[in-house]
Amino acid sequence: MNFGENIIGFSGSGCGTDVIRSVDPTTGNQSGDFFVATQAEVDQAGQKASEAFQVYRKKTGLEKARFLEAIADEIIAIGDELIIVCSRESGLPGGRITGERGRTTGQLRMFAALLKEGSWLGARIETADPGRLPLPKPDIRSMQIALGPVVVFGASNFPLAFSVAGGDTSSALAAGCSVIVKAHPAHPETSWLIGRAIQKAAKSTDMPDGVFSLLFGDGPVLGGQLVQQPEVKAIAFTGSFAAGKAIFDLAARRPIPIPVYAEMGSTNPVFILPEALKHQADHLAKGFSASVTLGVGQFCTNPGLLIYEDDESAVVFLDHLASEFSQTSGGVMLTSNIYDAYTRGVESRTGLHGVELFTRGAATDHKNTAEPMLFKISGETFEAQPELAEEVFGPTSVAVEAKSKEELLNIARGLSGNLTATVHGTPVDLEEYKLLLEILEQKVGRILINGYPTGVEVCSAMVHGGPYPATTDSRSTSVGTAAIERFTRPVCYQNMPDALLPEALKDANPLHIWRLINGSQSKEII
Amino acid sequence: MNFGENIIGFSGSGCGTDVIRSVDPTTGNQSGDFFVATQAEVDQAGQKASEAFQVYRKKTGLEKARFLEAIADEIIAIGDELIIVCSRESGLPGGRITGERGRTTGQLRMFAALLKEGSWLGARIETADPGRLPLPKPDIRSMQIALGPVVVFGASNFPLAFSVAGGDTSSALAAGCSVIVKAHPAHPETSWLIGRAIQKAAKSTDMPDGVFSLLFGDGPVLGGQLVQQPEVKAIAFTGSFAAGKAIFDLAARRPIPIPVYAEMGSTNPVFILPEALKHQADHLAKGFSASVTLGVGQFCTNPGLLIYEDDESAVVFLDHLASEFSQTSGGVMLTSNIYDAYTRGVESRTGLHGVELFTRGAATDHKNTAEPMLFKISGETFEAQPELAEEVFGPTSVAVEAKSKEELLNIARGLSGNLTATVHGTPVDLEEYKLLLEILEQKVGRILINGYPTGVEVCSAMVHGGPYPATTDSRSTSVGTAAIERFTRPVCYQNMPDALLPEALKDANPLHIWRLINGSQSKEII
Repeated sequence: MNFGENIIGFSGSGCGTDVIRSVDPTTGNQSGDFFVATQAEVDQAGQKASEAFQVYRKKTGLEKARFLEAIADEIIAIGDELIIVCSRESGLPGGRITGERGRTTGQLRMFAALLKEGSWLGARIETADPGRLPLPKPDIRSMQIALGPVVVFGASNFPLAFSVAGGDTSSALAAGCSVIVKAHPAHPETSWLIGRAIQKAAKSTDMPDGVFSLLFGDGPVLGGQLVQQPEVKAIAFTGSFAAGKAIFDLAARRPIPIPVYAEMGSTNPVFILPEALKHQADHLAKGFSASVTLGVGQFCTNPGLLIYEDDESAVVFLDHLASEFSQTSGGVMLTSNIYDAYTRGVESRTGLHGVELFTRGAATDHKNTAEPMLFKISGETFEAQPELAEEVFGPTSVAVEAKSKEELLNIARGLSGNLTATVHGTPVDLEEYKLLLEILEQKVGRILINGYPTGVEVCSAMVHGGPYPATTDSRSTSVGTAAIERFTRPVCYQNMPDALLPEALKDANPLHIWRLINGSQSKEII
Repeated sequence: MNFGENIIGFSGSGCGTDVIRSVDPTTGNQSGDFFVATQAEVDQAGQKASEAFQVYRKKTGLEKARFLEAIADEIIAIGDELIIVCSRESGLPGGRITGERGRTTGQLRMFAALLKEGSWLGARIETADPGRLPLPKPDIRSMQIALGPVVVFGASNFPLAFSVAGGDTSSALAAGCSVIVKAHPAHPETSWLIGRAIQKAAKSTDMPDGVFSLLFGDGPVLGGQLVQQPEVKAIAFTGSFAAGKAIFDLAARRPIPIPVYAEMGSTNPVFILPEALKHQADHLAKGFSASVTLGVGQFCTNPGLLIYEDDESAVVFLDHLASEFSQTSGGVMLTSNIYDAYTRGVESRTGLHGVELFTRGAATDHKNTAEPMLFKISGETFEAQPELAEEVFGPTSVAVEAKSKEELLNIARGLSGNLTATVHGTPVDLEEYKLLLEILEQKVGRILINGYPTGVEVCSAMVHGGPYPATTDSRSTSVGTAAIERFTRPVCYQNMPDALLPEALKDANPLHIWRLINGSQSKEII
C-alpha cells in the first residue's frame, strides 16, 4: 500500500497513468500524486464490494459496532497529521478541522451505539392463528436488511464529516452495506489518510476484504463509472445540484435503477417577523451576519435568503445589518473552482434588474478569498426573478423586503424545496404567522425557531433533507441515526422455523430489542 | 352526479366526448358509458387534490380514521349490486368478490385502527441541553408528515382490494394525502360504485372537496397526464412491468421527480428440496397445482417457476404433478387483452428450444378462457434462456429440473428481483440449504417456508414488495400497515415552542403514542 494509491479492499492499486494532485487553495501549491482509478480498478472495487457484502451483511450488530469504533480510533490515531493535511487542503482553520474530526468520530460511535442497542432493525412479528376462519393466519415476521454495496461521493465542504468516513459511509456500513467512496478531488490526501484508517480498522476487526474501497478520479468520469457498476445498490452524494441531478438521472436509466440520496442545493430562507424585527434588530443583524459568513459560507445550510416586511422597524434593522455585515470578513474558499463559481454567482446577481448590492464584508486580495456580499431586493423583484432563489455557494445572501404579510406569505408559497427554513418571532409573532409555519413545513426538512440553520445537530431526531431540489429523496435524512434507513429494505419470513430466523425475529428475542408484536411495541419474548 | 361521470371531488363531470364501456369478459357484452377524462378535467382533479390536501393534512388521526371507516361502511352499503357488477366485469366468481370486499373493508379498518393508535407517526424527540460544551444542544423533534396528492392506478386483477379503495388508496388517505385514482378500464362500473361510496363517506365525515377523485380513460394517455400533474407528489401502481416502467421513467423526468411505487412482474419461484420431494410428493404436487391455477393464475404472487433436483424422487413427484395438474381447470380471464397476452405467452414458450409442454389442465372453448399449462425444462435450458424467468400472467408455470444442488443454487443466484420465493423442505433440508435461504433473502420481499405464495396476509409484518423488477422501490411494501410509509416524509422542528408543535411532538404526549425520546422508546411525557 503506497502513498497515493487507490484503496481497493485490503490492497493498494495504482494501475493508471493519470494523477490528481493535492492543492493548497491558500497558496495554489500542489503536492502528492494520487492515481486516477482505471475502469478495471473500478470494476475490481465493485466486484470486491459485492463479494465482501455477502460476508459483511451477516456480521452481528456488535461486530459491526466494533468496526465503526475501530475506524473512529484509527482516525484519532492519525494524530496532528490529519489536522495539518486537511487544513492545508481545505483552507479551513485547524480548530474547525479538529471540531469536525470530533463530529466524524462522534457519528461513527453514534451508529455503533445504535447497532449495539439493535431496535433500528424494525422487527415486526405477527404470530400465527391456525384456527382463524375462513383461512388460518400464518406466522409473518419482517425486519430491515442491508441493500448491498453503496457508493458514497465525498463532499468538498466537510472534508471529514461528509466525506470518506462521514455520515454516509458510517450509516451505510452500520446498515451492513459495503462501501466504495469516490474521494473528492479537493482533498485527496485527507481522503487517503482516512481511507487507510478504515482499511486498518477493517483488518483489525476481521471484516472482509472489500468492505471498503476508496477511489480517486475526475468527478463526472469516475462518478459515472461508479453509478453504473451493476453490483451497486444505492448512491449517497452531497454537492451541487448539477452533479446530484446528473447522478440521479444516470441511476434512473440503469438497467436496474437504484435509489440516489443526493443532498444538493438549498438557500435556507430566514424569515424575521414584525415584532422580532422591532425588538431584536441588533441581535438579529449580528446573528444573521455571522451565520451567512460562518466557514466562508460554505455550508449546505447557509442562509441565502432573508425575508422580512417593510416597515419603520425594517429601516432600523437594515442600519444594524449594514453595520454588522460590513464587519464580517471572508476567507479562502475550499478550491479555486468554488471561488470562481462564487465570483461568477455574485457578479451575475449584481447585474440583475432591481438588485441592490446592500453591503459587503471586509475584502482582501488574497488568493481564492471570497468577499462577503449582501444583496437587497423587493418582494416583487424576487417573485419576478426566480433565479434569485438559487444557491450561490459562499458568504452571500439576499435580503427580500416584502410589502405586506400577504406578500411575505406568497414568497414562502413560491419557495422550492429546501433543507431548512428559519423563523424569528416573538410568541405573538409566531401565533399570528401560524400559516407561515404550515407553508414552510411543506417546503423543508427542518424548521428552526429563533436560531440559525448553520449547525446541524447529529442525533436521532435530526432531519437533514427536504423536498426536491434540496435532495432527490425527501423521505430520507443524511444526518442522524435515521440516515441508516436509506440503505435498508424490509424482508419478511412466512412460517420460517425459529432456528432459521434472524436473531432479531426469534421467539426468545435474544437481541433484547423493541419489536412490533401483533401491532404493539414490546420487548417481550413470544 | 350522473352514472358514468368522472368523480372530481364532490362533483360529477363528463365533459369529454370519448367513452369507455364495461365489458363482460365471459360474454363480450358491453354496457354503460364512462366518460374519458379530458385534460381540463385532469387538471381540475389535480387542482382540487392540491387544495384539499391543505385541509386534509391537518385532520387528526381520529378524523381520518372515521373517514376510512365510513368508506368501508359505504362499500358494504352498496350491497349485492357491487358483487354482481364486479363479478360480471371481472369474470371472477361472486364468492371470491365477496371475500375480496371483506379484505378491502378490512384494510380500511386496519388503517383506521393504525391512525387511532397513532405511533405510526414515528415521533422522535431530542431534548435540549443548554449547558452542553462546546455548543448548547438544541431541542429537536421530528415526525412523519404527508407527502401531498397521490395518484393511484387501479389494478385489473383485484378489482376491489388493489383498486379504487384498495391498499394504495387507503394507505395514502391514512397518511394524510389526497388521492386521485385512475380507474382500471377492466372494471369501470365497479370503480364508479366504489368511487361514489368514497365520495359519500368524504361528505358525511366532513372531509374537503377534492380529497378524492376518480377518473376514467385510456391507460397511457390518462396515466401520462396524471403522472405529469405538477401537484402530484407520489404514484402507486400495480400492473405490468411495461406500464410500471413507463410510469417510473416519466416520473423521473418530471421537472420535480417524484417517487413511484410500482408493483410489477414477479415469477415467485418455488423450490422443493430433496427430502421434501421424496416424502411429500403427492401433497406438494397437489398444493402447487392448486396455487398455479387459483383465480385463473391472475395473482402477482402466482408461482411461475418450480425448481427441484433431478433424482429418483423427482420421477415419482413428476407423476403426481402430471396427474394433479391435469385435473386443474382454467377459467375466464379478466379481459380479452389479458387472455390474448396469456395465449401469446404460453405459445412463445412452446416454441423455445428445450422447452417441453409437460401437462395441461382441462380445456374449454369458452370465450377468454385460459387453459392451464405446465412446462418443463432443464436447469441448463433455464440458465441459457433468461426470458423463461419472465412472468406470463395466468395459470401457467415452468418446472425447472436442476442436475445438482450446485445448479439449483446457481439458478437461485441468477434470479432477478421477485415479490416472493418459497422453499419446501424438511427440517433436515432447510438446515442443509441455508445458503439457498440467504441467496433468496436478497432477491425477494417475502420468503415462505412450506407454503404457497398466493395469499398475502394483510398485517403489520407483511412485505409485499421486492427488488427491481418486482417493484420500482424495494424499500416499500404495498400491503400491510407499513404501506403508509410510502406517502410520508420526515420533518423536524428545532426549538419550536410547545404550543406550536404538532400534537405528536408536544411535551405532554397528548396522543399517548410511542416516541423515541433521546434514543429510547417511551410513552412518557417530557
